[in-house]
Amino acid sequence: MNKTIRVTVWNEFRHERESEAVKKVYPNGIHGTIADFLNRQEGIEAVTATLDEPEHGLTDEVLSSTDVMIWWGHMAHHEVSDEIVEKVHKKVLEGMGLIVLHSGHFSKIFRRLMGTECDLKWREIGEKERLWVVEPGHPIVEGIDEYIEIPREEMYGERFDIPAPDTLVFISWFAGGEVFRSGCCYNRGKGKIFYFRPGHETFPVYHQPDIQKVITNAVKWAAPTDGPRLRMGHVPEPLEDIK
Amino acid sequence: MNKTIRVTVWNEFRHERESEAVKKVYPNGIHGTIADFLNRQEGIEAVTATLDEPEHGLTDEVLSSTDVMIWWGHMAHHEVSDEIVEKVHKKVLEGMGLIVLHSGHFSKIFRRLMGTECDLKWREIGEKERLWVVEPGHPIVEGIDEYIEIPREEMYGERFDIPAPDTLVFISWFAGGEVFRSGCCYNRGKGKIFYFRPGHETFPVYHQPDIQKVITNAVKWAAPTDGPRLRMGHVPEPLEDIK
Amino acid sequence: MNKTIRVTVWNEFRHERESEAVKKVYPNGIHGTIADFLNRQEGIEAVTATLDEPEHGLTDEVLSSTDVMIWWGHMAHHEVSDEIVEKVHKKVLEGMGLIVLHSGHFSKIFRRLMGTECDLKWREIGEKERLWVVEPGHPIVEGIDEYIEIPREEMYGERFDIPAPDTLVFISWFAGGEVFRSGCCYNRGKGKIFYFRPGHETFPVYHQPDIQKVITNAVKWAAPTDGPRLRMGHVPEPLEDIK
Amino acid sequence: MNKTIRVTVWNEFRHERESEAVKKVYPNGIHGTIADFLNRQEGIEAVTATLDEPEHGLTDEVLSSTDVMIWWGHMAHHEVSDEIVEKVHKKVLEGMGLIVLHSGHFSKIFRRLMGTECDLKWREIGEKERLWVVEPGHPIVEGIDEYIEIPREEMYGERFDIPAPDTLVFISWFAGGEVFRSGCCYNRGKGKIFYFRPGHETFPVYHQPDIQKVITNAVKWAAPTDGPRLRMGHVPEPLEDIK
Repeated sequence: MNKTIRVTVWNEFRHERESEAVKKVYPNGIHGTIADFLNRQEGIEAVTATLDEPEHGLTDEVLSSTDVMIWWGHMAHHEVSDEIVEKVHKKVLEGMGLIVLHSGHFSKIFRRLMGTECDLKWREIGEKERLWVVEPGHPIVEGIDEYIEIPREEMYGERFDIPAPDTLVFISWFAGGEVFRSGCCYNRGKGKIFYFRPGHETFPVYHQPDIQKVITNAVKWAAPTDGPRLRMGHVPEPLEDIK
Repeated sequence: MNKTIRVTVWNEFRHERESEAVKKVYPNGIHGTIADFLNRQEGIEAVTATLDEPEHGLTDEVLSSTDVMIWWGHMAHHEVSDEIVEKVHKKVLEGMGLIVLHSGHFSKIFRRLMGTECDLKWREIGEKERLWVVEPGHPIVEGIDEYIEIPREEMYGERFDIPAPDTLVFISWFAGGEVFRSGCCYNRGKGKIFYFRPGHETFPVYHQPDIQKVITNAVKWAAPTDGPRLRMGHVPEPLEDIK
Repeated sequence: MNKTIRVTVWNEFRHERESEAVKKVYPNGIHGTIADFLNRQEGIEAVTATLDEPEHGLTDEVLSSTDVMIWWGHMAHHEVSDEIVEKVHKKVLEGMGLIVLHSGHFSKIFRRLMGTECDLKWREIGEKERLWVVEPGHPIVEGIDEYIEIPREEMYGERFDIPAPDTLVFISWFAGGEVFRSGCCYNRGKGKIFYFRPGHETFPVYHQPDIQKVITNAVKWAAPTDGPRLRMGHVPEPLEDIK
Repeated sequence: MNKTIRVTVWNEFRHERESEAVKKVYPNGIHGTIADFLNRQEGIEAVTATLDEPEHGLTDEVLSSTDVMIWWGHMAHHEVSDEIVEKVHKKVLEGMGLIVLHSGHFSKIFRRLMGTECDLKWREIGEKERLWVVEPGHPIVEGIDEYIEIPREEMYGERFDIPAPDTLVFISWFAGGEVFRSGCCYNRGKGKIFYFRPGHETFPVYHQPDIQKVITNAVKWAAPTDGPRLRMGHVPEPLEDIK
């Protein structure tokens, strides 16, 4: 009865090829790790796409067969073509789910959808992070404890220049003195968007079972539903007496 | 994998016994009609409870085996015992879903959860209502068209004295000149609440397939998730160095 | 103590020059009418700017001396230069208020800030509109009755493709059977945005005292406040022991 | 033109009489300190009321001449009479502003208005707190820096059992590893409510200039506006043709 959710995990895939340290953490790329744990889930089929493939791996065919897209990017946001960004934007408004991870906050697609600059503070000393759940009935925190602890992470700090989330699910604490809205749900058009903060490339964050659980939950939450067909533009005079 | 959702449909069940006109529309009571269409759904098991049963049919046993409660009441809100209201309130905060229908806006449990008076305008001339979808990606409008039309309904008009919904799904238009926030989602504690306006007892509203579809969708949306166990109160000094 | 609020009323100013019917309603342009009633308010100084002026009248000097901008456009959205749009966008995030009127829903600046397409339904038969107040404590409805009635207006109908407003203040009813979220408040960056639906060029909407009152209230609400100076980007290791 | 805002600062006023340590910090009571700094503001007139006065100092006369009420309570919430709570509740829905401070989270009036339990975590080791601004254009943070630092405070930690705020203004960081939604704005009826976390009785928090500035700003934000007169209940058939 429940349809399979088709996920495309998009990754810039540069750090993993250019840095030995990162390659050690993610030998198959961040996208490989994420697609792997998603494919172990019943009801989810994940494929990958990366920046340096033709059309960044996001051909019309791939887009038309994607229910939920996951986005990781960092050093090469500017290399993503505006044309592809517009296509992804259109797909989201039509209902495709989008999960934006970590440094994806600065991606063209996330900034396009938010309408703001999405800037923030950052510091890279490998400090402790705790993601506290503030909306405990939300499906994205199913099976999660009161907080997720990440022993060593890059810090992201407020003020995070985003619209207030439609639902705020996680708030992060960092040992160095900052907080961050780390799990943010948005409805845009018919699409659902989840921004999830963790995932610096030099730490094994996406190997943590609770982080994997959140991303898996988010895929299920963001999957399209068969909502109303919307008619836009001119509508004629009411034919019948509307009273 | 998906667990069965256990629903308790609560109804005041007075109008149907006191008025021939209402009995004709709902021979088995409003609760009977709602439980019937829910029980035709795979994955949902619905039972009923009514005001004049002992403990209003909401014994501890019933409450402990309810995932989602549906509430219809009107003429006898004041007869619902405060003790039962407190039990239902506690259950919602612990994660039980609650769907409040139509005149249930004035029920003790809804007002308790909202913290406001929940007053509104009303007029009973059997005018046309249209419920327009404003959040088309929400699971509650799966399978629904751009709007639901009810040929003849009681009017409810703004200002509706509620907190702004966490998600507003439907806005009603009435032929007589009013509008109403008709589909309102709330997170409270670990529970999800959906207020759904339609359902005056003298019109066959709950026999409409699209209305049944919305209520069915709402049951699935409001079903509890296995969220974090929350620890409240005093927490001792951090044992470990939190840095 | 209260500083003067400097308003720039921006108008496309094409309809008024090309159509005798519109010119009759707004002999000095829509911008002229709006600036006039604002300038009758103590504490507000309004100037105007129009599309066909150099830089659309929005030079750096004008932008730097604007606290709140009002935007009316319709037939020539595409003629507004992207460069100016980016400048206005930046100003809003830095704190300038923005009030977008009627067909400005399709302006580049509004779509840029919303991140969505901002499409809607429309019909031009001069039907009755009622704007119902749903947030009666909001400063934008000070001095307003339960609803504002406009005898003849263009209809805009849901689904309106916008992010759910941070605060929804008005919902419109139209005689022909539609509803619309007509007064929408947004926080973006340090700026406040108010979308206000009424104002088709062929009807004397901006001559109505209650419509003028709402726009005046919105100017006061959207005026910048002296908020925190935000530091973005890299922050060094905490110098002191943060414990 | 701007009317004077009449503030009633309500305090339980027990700690200050029972504990020498607290008396040393607040020799005139917490209410005295707060009323003092408010009365130094042009356009604000503050009086005080305390638990042990007749009717807790909240007579009908006092209530009818209060624009904004400030509430501090802790050890004796249960001694506040339900009748007074209902009167204050009614006044808030009619437009009176309410600012709830620190341990007031557990007051009857706050729980009544929220509809939830308002429970949280706490720890009293005098750790460092930082309140980060997340909505920098909000009038409540006028004149405030990116964050407010309190050298030694009681910790309050998530999950805080409240409805998601209509606007979240501050998020607190605590040295011991927790976060907290520390500045929460709500619209309820025609009233505006602000919950502000800081203020444990043993630390001189309300002597901090930036904390005083936030409370002063909140008083101005929460002051009633002259909004629509709402008509509730039965409305007759439209007299005129609404088309």
